[in-house]
Amino acid sequence: MLKIGLLGAGRIGRVHAINIANHARSQLVAVSDVNEDAARSLADAYGAKAVSSEAILADASIDAVLIATSTDTHSDLIEKATAAGKAVLCEKPVDLSLERAQRCLNSVHGTGVPVMIGFNRRFDPNFSAIKASITAGEIGKPELLSITSFDPAPPPVAYVKVSGGLFRDMMIHDFDMANFLMGDAPKTVHAAGTSIVDPEIGKAGDVDTAVVTLTYADGRIAVIKNSRRAVYGYDQRVEVLGSEGLLSAGNVLENTVSKATKQGVTSAKPEFFFLERYMRAYAAEWNAFVATILDGAANPVSLKDGVAALALAEAATQSAKSGQAVSLA
Amino acid sequence: MLKIGLLGAGRIGRVHAINIANHARSQLVAVSDVNEDAARSLADAYGAKAVSSEAILADASIDAVLIATSTDTHSDLIEKATAAGKAVLCEKPVDLSLERAQRCLNSVHGTGVPVMIGFNRRFDPNFSAIKASITAGEIGKPELLSITSFDPAPPPVAYVKVSGGLFRDMMIHDFDMANFLMGDAPKTVHAAGTSIVDPEIGKAGDVDTAVVTLTYADGRIAVIKNSRRAVYGYDQRVEVLGSEGLLSAGNVLENTVSKATKQGVTSAKPEFFFLERYMRAYAAEWNAFVATILDGAANPVSLKDGVAALALAEAATQSAKSGQAVSLA
Amino acid sequence: MLKIGLLGAGRIGRVHAINIANHARSQLVAVSDVNEDAARSLADAYGAKAVSSEAILADASIDAVLIATSTDTHSDLIEKATAAGKAVLCEKPVDLSLERAQRCLNSVHGTGVPVMIGFNRRFDPNFSAIKASITAGEIGKPELLSITSFDPAPPPVAYVKVSGGLFRDMMIHDFDMANFLMGDAPKTVHAAGTSIVDPEIGKAGDVDTAVVTLTYADGRIAVIKNSRRAVYGYDQRVEVLGSEGLLSAGNVLENTVSKATKQGVTSAKPEFFFLERYMRAYAAEWNAFVATILDGAANPVSLKDGVAALALAEAATQSAKSGQAVSLA
Amino acid sequence: MLKIGLLGAGRIGRVHAINIANHARSQLVAVSDVNEDAARSLADAYGAKAVSSEAILADASIDAVLIATSTDTHSDLIEKATAAGKAVLCEKPVDLSLERAQRCLNSVHGTGVPVMIGFNRRFDPNFSAIKASITAGEIGKPELLSITSFDPAPPPVAYVKVSGGLFRDMMIHDFDMANFLMGDAPKTVHAAGTSIVDPEIGKAGDVDTAVVTLTYADGRIAVIKNSRRAVYGYDQRVEVLGSEGLLSAGNVLENTVSKATKQGVTSAKPEFFFLERYMRAYAAEWNAFVATILDGAANPVSLKDGVAALALAEAATQSAKSGQAVSLA
Repeated sequence: MLKIGLLGAGRIGRVHAINIANHARSQLVAVSDVNEDAARSLADAYGAKAVSSEAILADASIDAVLIATSTDTHSDLIEKATAAGKAVLCEKPVDLSLERAQRCLNSVHGTGVPVMIGFNRRFDPNFSAIKASITAGEIGKPELLSITSFDPAPPPVAYVKVSGGLFRDMMIHDFDMANFLMGDAPKTVHAAGTSIVDPEIGKAGDVDTAVVTLTYADGRIAVIKNSRRAVYGYDQRVEVLGSEGLLSAGNVLENTVSKATKQGVTSAKPEFFFLERYMRAYAAEWNAFVATILDGAANPVSLKDGVAALALAEAATQSAKSGQAVSLA
Repeated sequence: MLKIGLLGAGRIGRVHAINIANHARSQLVAVSDVNEDAARSLADAYGAKAVSSEAILADASIDAVLIATSTDTHSDLIEKATAAGKAVLCEKPVDLSLERAQRCLNSVHGTGVPVMIGFNRRFDPNFSAIKASITAGEIGKPELLSITSFDPAPPPVAYVKVSGGLFRDMMIHDFDMANFLMGDAPKTVHAAGTSIVDPEIGKAGDVDTAVVTLTYADGRIAVIKNSRRAVYGYDQRVEVLGSEGLLSAGNVLENTVSKATKQGVTSAKPEFFFLERYMRAYAAEWNAFVATILDGAANPVSLKDGVAALALAEAATQSAKSGQAVSLA
Repeated sequence: MLKIGLLGAGRIGRVHAINIANHARSQLVAVSDVNEDAARSLADAYGAKAVSSEAILADASIDAVLIATSTDTHSDLIEKATAAGKAVLCEKPVDLSLERAQRCLNSVHGTGVPVMIGFNRRFDPNFSAIKASITAGEIGKPELLSITSFDPAPPPVAYVKVSGGLFRDMMIHDFDMANFLMGDAPKTVHAAGTSIVDPEIGKAGDVDTAVVTLTYADGRIAVIKNSRRAVYGYDQRVEVLGSEGLLSAGNVLENTVSKATKQGVTSAKPEFFFLERYMRAYAAEWNAFVATILDGAANPVSLKDGVAALALAEAATQSAKSGQAVSLA
Repeated sequence: MLKIGLLGAGRIGRVHAINIANHARSQLVAVSDVNEDAARSLADAYGAKAVSSEAILADASIDAVLIATSTDTHSDLIEKATAAGKAVLCEKPVDLSLERAQRCLNSVHGTGVPVMIGFNRRFDPNFSAIKASITAGEIGKPELLSITSFDPAPPPVAYVKVSGGLFRDMMIHDFDMANFLMGDAPKTVHAAGTSIVDPEIGKAGDVDTAVVTLTYADGRIAVIKNSRRAVYGYDQRVEVLGSEGLLSAGNVLENTVSKATKQGVTSAKPEFFFLERYMRAYAAEWNAFVATILDGAANPVSLKDGVAALALAEAATQSAKSGQAVSLA
């Protein structure tokens, strides 16, 4: 039974707390948060103790930590936790700075402690079925990947300002999905971005709608579409065209009911947002992390993967500014 | 926090145990089963004690029981539990004998103790959305109801022999669904049954495929189709034609992936069987039971509902034998 | 090039006129109708002459006739046309009287002149794909057939009164579809009918909503649902459950556009009525008729098939009145 | 009744011949082709005469011409036909050279003779429904357009060499669709292209797979995906994300049948190629052309539209070579 310390008791921390507590081989023993009330409330719900991050890292009885704090603390906490010998599951992104993330990777490298990055979508049953189908050769050689990823509504501008921008904050999931499904890093990145949803986002120096094209050394192409607003709900789809077919993963709908009237045939909307859509993915992610530690399973999303996605986000940010494609080393 | 005793640690008992244990307002404290090992193993997993049914019914600290034992014990246990002042959630059917079930209803009537019958499908998000839409008048006046309910594979003939037959064992869910969606009992029942899937089922005096037509006093009609074998998985659909439209609840698929190749476009199968398809329904059912006890919410599936469904099963059994329609009092 | 005389220039006659005229191996040369203006107008549009039925039957240059007159004239015209050596494609039903239809069959029998009945749905690409898939054994042994057939709106009561009733006028298509897909006649027919859409239809002695169950000697079952009103359009679906799978033919929609908004996801309605939905089927039907005559292809829908469907309609009419199942000889 | 001369009796010429002949207000009177046998055979089928192009242009009784010859002759023939006062429907593209097409536009400008370019997809019922929905404001302000357009199989390399390349030959349809749906020309074009389907296409200097991103002055973005090979059939889809919703036009499938077995649920493939998918679009296109001439309806696809699409194809060709975005004047 793994003893787990949870760093961060915000929205995503609470999602993880449920999965940690419900898992047959893990136990939530400690929670920390800059907001002590939040930590206490969450800890109480699961019979854990509310303590400081330092206390968690110093507690030799704790096997692993889940880092769900603000992004600017991720690299430090990963380094400290691994130095203390604790396995780490850290939320995305590793850092807003590629350079800092790279240093973190170098620092952790060689400790032998597993660090997994929370790219939850790899564990979505639909996307993992796509990956399995590609790997099984069911569509021959993949040639053209398309990722659609729209949020239901834009975040507050105050959040946008500290988020690192759409490419590091939102599209980073899609960059990781591209790396996951293509099994390689692209050689060029071209981004077109606009702040058509909310001009205030543009004034804050960010975009809210973007199309990114990735090209690969072997001739494959990937395209990612992001929008901060899809009023009908969280739109999360993937398509892969291969030499022998097309794989598509559609949205998960709220229910299977349709209603036919004089006005047309109406069906349910996609699950509203990530907590609903990826509920199963978060549980599977946690299960994979536990298996990595206890069963020696291969780490499914390494810190290196986290840095690789961040490198694409950095290139896309630069391309969206210059309007020109960026070559990756 | 409701203290719950679970009578029956078989397949369906284990499903309920998870929901009892995970619910914020209920706690599994005791488990009984004729197979003591099964009871102990399940009890241990949730920190409950394994005891006899008698001990559970005699334990004043236990607020409610979930009856998941074999059908022939249901009526007795309902009577004993309510006599002991314990709220009851009992699996379907109430009994194989309509007369016995009716006596149970009379006996319980007036005790004021809530008895809920486990027609889990009422709590399926798709079917409850259908009910809500009908109630909201979205398709006007319902006129023609169709229920499709196919199991993935027939049960062993040994089970068939003690099951009470397809109408009492399997279609009883659909009879309850008809009662639920139509909000009334039919006036006639016509059944056509056959043992085309497995002749051994026919030799055992039962059918494995059946179509039942229900007619209502106000002119509405319902039709139910059952088969014990749908090799592609558990097929559970409902359609209601009304004066202003059609409502349809489709199957829940294993995932949303489709694959287009030279051979056609392939998508996922329905969730394989009731444990997968109705996982959410069982949790919602338990939540409704808790609310009935703790919040005084209306009992969503009363013992009377259980007897009403059984009355239809009895009539259908009779009609399938005679080939003629049966009038209900 | 077949020279064709068209008897009847009403709605369905005009549909056939287009197909006769557009076919590379047939030519519309004469049109008759009790309404002479209608005959003339249609004849003019295709360079044909407007004449009497008698003249058409007496014209030795005419190879075949299409009978699209009122039902009460069908048997007489079939007999006269075949006596004159002309191949016949006659609209359904053969007659309202089973006895008269049977006499017509006896009379025609032995003339060797092909008589085809206009069960157009056999030529719908969706239903013919279902038939082909069954024949190819793709779902193993068919066990349970379901036919859904809803009209968009009820006909005027004046029409209902002369129509022969829902079973002879509307469900006859579905009886033929059952005969077509099951490849056998049923041994029992049970019908439940109601006039819930329009009480005036009930006062006229007919039903507007019905469910018919057919059972077969080998244990198979079929169920047919009819309603005179589906406000969302013409609803025409077929499902066949077999030992190795399920075949379903869905509706043909007006377009493939869907719109996702805050209110849900809306898609197009089914094609409104039979002229739209079965446009391709009527053309394929005509092509098959031409092939029967010119290429000696097997008659895909014989007069005997027409009589067989009528026999089911008669049995269903009787069953709906008595409430009891009817056995067929 | 418009008298029509058809220039070009190849595959696409034959499609148009059917629509010209079947239309109530047009008549095919003459056909020309460099292959005289082809011209004669097609002319004979419709009671037209086979003559030279010169003869058609010189025949004062001919009201309009349909140009379905090889691309390199389009501009010349448009100029000659309009000079002769004949209305023109010309297949796409106007020319392979933007400069030549521009000269053609200048030359025709002011003659007052309608010249329509055969961007048939505007007349597809699905895409025209998308346009109508946008225009009606049903999804608010359009923000992000996606066009997917995959051919079933690559053309012979010999064809590729004279085709002008994927952007002028294939994606030109999508450029026009973008112009049609966005109602404006983009300000930048970025193209990523690859010859991953067939290296021989790459050796011929062309690409077979491409992603093009268009940005607009008002902040909107469009993305077009093309592949020369989708083994499951012709894949033609459009999506528009707007401030109040998403519009999607899916593929037209061969039939509506699905088959559920142990292996999954299989449905039909998309209509195989453009002759099947756009059969209705070609007929509607011809009808629109007739209405432009006879009813003074607005020209739905002007020569200017043809030049505008070509300008995007030229920019994309340039961008795919340089790897950098191209700004349009």
